[in-house]
Amino acid sequence: MRRDLEDARRGGAFSAVERDAAARIIAAIRRDGDAGVLRAVRRFDRPRATTRDLVADAVDLRRAARGCPRDVRAALGLAYSRIRAFHERQRPREIRHRDGNGDVRLVPAPLDRVGALVPRGLSAYPSTALMTGVPAQVARVRELVAASPMPRDGSLDPALAYALTLVGAAALYRAGGAAAVAALAYGTKSVARVDRIVGPGNAYAAAAKWLVSADVGIDALQGPSELIAIASADADPRVLALDLLAQAEHGAGAFAVLITDSPALLRDVAARLEKTAPRVLLYRAPGLLAAARAADSAAPEHVLLAGRRAAALADRIRHAGAVFIGASSAVAFGDYVAGTNHALPTGGTARWSSALRVEDFIRWTSRVELRGGQSRLARAGVSIARHEGMSYHAASMEARV
Amino acid sequence: MRRDLEDARRGGAFSAVERDAAARIIAAIRRDGDAGVLRAVRRFDRPRATTRDLVADAVDLRRAARGCPRDVRAALGLAYSRIRAFHERQRPREIRHRDGNGDVRLVPAPLDRVGALVPRGLSAYPSTALMTGVPAQVARVRELVAASPMPRDGSLDPALAYALTLVGAAALYRAGGAAAVAALAYGTKSVARVDRIVGPGNAYAAAAKWLVSADVGIDALQGPSELIAIASADADPRVLALDLLAQAEHGAGAFAVLITDSPALLRDVAARLEKTAPRVLLYRAPGLLAAARAADSAAPEHVLLAGRRAAALADRIRHAGAVFIGASSAVAFGDYVAGTNHALPTGGTARWSSALRVEDFIRWTSRVELRGGQSRLARAGVSIARHEGMSYHAASMEARV
Repeated sequence: MRRDLEDARRGGAFSAVERDAAARIIAAIRRDGDAGVLRAVRRFDRPRATTRDLVADAVDLRRAARGCPRDVRAALGLAYSRIRAFHERQRPREIRHRDGNGDVRLVPAPLDRVGALVPRGLSAYPSTALMTGVPAQVARVRELVAASPMPRDGSLDPALAYALTLVGAAALYRAGGAAAVAALAYGTKSVARVDRIVGPGNAYAAAAKWLVSADVGIDALQGPSELIAIASADADPRVLALDLLAQAEHGAGAFAVLITDSPALLRDVAARLEKTAPRVLLYRAPGLLAAARAADSAAPEHVLLAGRRAAALADRIRHAGAVFIGASSAVAFGDYVAGTNHALPTGGTARWSSALRVEDFIRWTSRVELRGGQSRLARAGVSIARHEGMSYHAASMEARV
Repeated sequence: MRRDLEDARRGGAFSAVERDAAARIIAAIRRDGDAGVLRAVRRFDRPRATTRDLVADAVDLRRAARGCPRDVRAALGLAYSRIRAFHERQRPREIRHRDGNGDVRLVPAPLDRVGALVPRGLSAYPSTALMTGVPAQVARVRELVAASPMPRDGSLDPALAYALTLVGAAALYRAGGAAAVAALAYGTKSVARVDRIVGPGNAYAAAAKWLVSADVGIDALQGPSELIAIASADADPRVLALDLLAQAEHGAGAFAVLITDSPALLRDVAARLEKTAPRVLLYRAPGLLAAARAADSAAPEHVLLAGRRAAALADRIRHAGAVFIGASSAVAFGDYVAGTNHALPTGGTARWSSALRVEDFIRWTSRVELRGGQSRLARAGVSIARHEGMSYHAASMEARV
């Protein structure tokens, strides 16, 4: 099972079909600008869209936000404050090393312009506006814009608008998938080019992010959502079944795996799953340690450790987007209000990438300010430069002594 | 000038020709494994190479390192200790937020396996082995391997071998460019697949890194080297000319620009450049502030601020790989012994990416461990989940109250 999970799930955020379709959309938008975006929006989202529909500015967002129901407004406010509190702890500080030779530093600076992708499912996803917007705001990005597909009726979800006002977004571009990525990467008349594109999307958006990534920064590629739950016998089967069904609810290839060493628990959970839950797989493992190894090796987006013996395995999970520990830590809390980010690496990419963080909105400049008379440094530098065949490098260091 | 610099220099680490060639090499190596690598090595590096030549293990490296000349050994030792001291300051710490609701964290862990590209120019580049290896070592990466093309005679440079022993490399794969990238990304019989590929290379290597980046982590794409020097009238024209020539010495599209408001300095520097230095451009700017704005907007790999008035502009350069400040800070010191990293973003990508850092060898796992009875969090989470059409998400949170 371990090797299956690992081999099957590395990368895979998009297929060649999606890549080629995304490449065609990008080429069209680089050539035709807004007209290309509009064609894509009419084809995929709203047949009657016009160029004017494509951008909602900060004033439009504030106006639309007034329609946000009171309970959703309060909920987004609480989510915002918790996500913000956790991300504030991630704010970077200058790194400096000073000695008799002088001063070397890494100086952090926020990115100038960032574009956040906010996908649509059955409805708008204001939670994703918070997850992509808060770290940008904490990093003090100069201008944050968002892109999200419009529904068929062209309406603007008031909760999405409210979430975007909380994070200080300057505009919402009302396009999704590869079209949004192309417009943000290269700019059009109504969309200014950004320095980095972040946030989840469908397979076309993931393919497009990859395609533009030689020309603009991107965050991790995000494929279908995944959960591996490891449960010991004392886990609550009712709660566990809800977590697995919640995972499958993400749609579009999302899947959930339960691994347990308890045949009784396995039976109880199976009985509580809906008759057809094809996206939920149940495994019995010889022991929980083997289960933890399999999960770590698969490096999935989410790991849930349910039950006391399972919770004790947290330190064994080195490769995962996010780990939820213990009976009270529903994965869904992490989607909304725990404070951690829900934009997470998928498809085994957690072997090298991480949740969206404040760091993704920062760049670092090295600064070198040496004192005069660096004879020791120059001697060493000259030896290496000569060995590497770089005679002017050597001369430029010698000239400083 | 400003717009020219910005528009011309964004991305551009490779062309379509190099991309297609790299894609063919990658496909061949995914299909044929070591045989594909060997074909590439025979074609580009050493016609008489055999499979046995492809890997130098830790024992081979230690043996070869014995031949390293004493002065180069001492120089690499000093460079190593300075690079290490600066990178030790970059070691990350766990991020934690704890309140009445429980505990949320970001836990850092080193990557398991990293492959470092070490290009060859006129000679081997042991300095690049240090620059890619030290941050991996500081991050405590479990296994570091390097890849570097072999010379035509198949010899192994003792200084490169010595640098690789300093950083604890487990092996050196003796291939370069797209072949090295493909082998590291997908694995062959003699090359184990890595989780991230870092380090500079030629345009084929850059194209290959981009092509494999949906399946394996990469660092910033690195194109031809660049320097923008901004000098005030008091800068030393002799030293400045050497810095510009040192930059041009990188070859393969490398270029240097001098911008000054002093016609006298411009004349003096021009007189000292070799008759034909086609890769060095000299500009006169109306003022140094305009020069700094142009440099910041171009976001080049290196900025040199020479002379007192130029040095005062350091805070104006928000977008650059590395900034060298004042008369004593030769850019070449940064290539070898200053302590900062010489693997830097090029082609305007410094708008979103940074020098190679310890952070590039770390991944972060979110951990959520909430206490029981989260009625306030659940209420908020449920409101958002219902708005987003996620009823099992809502139920899984309600089940925790």
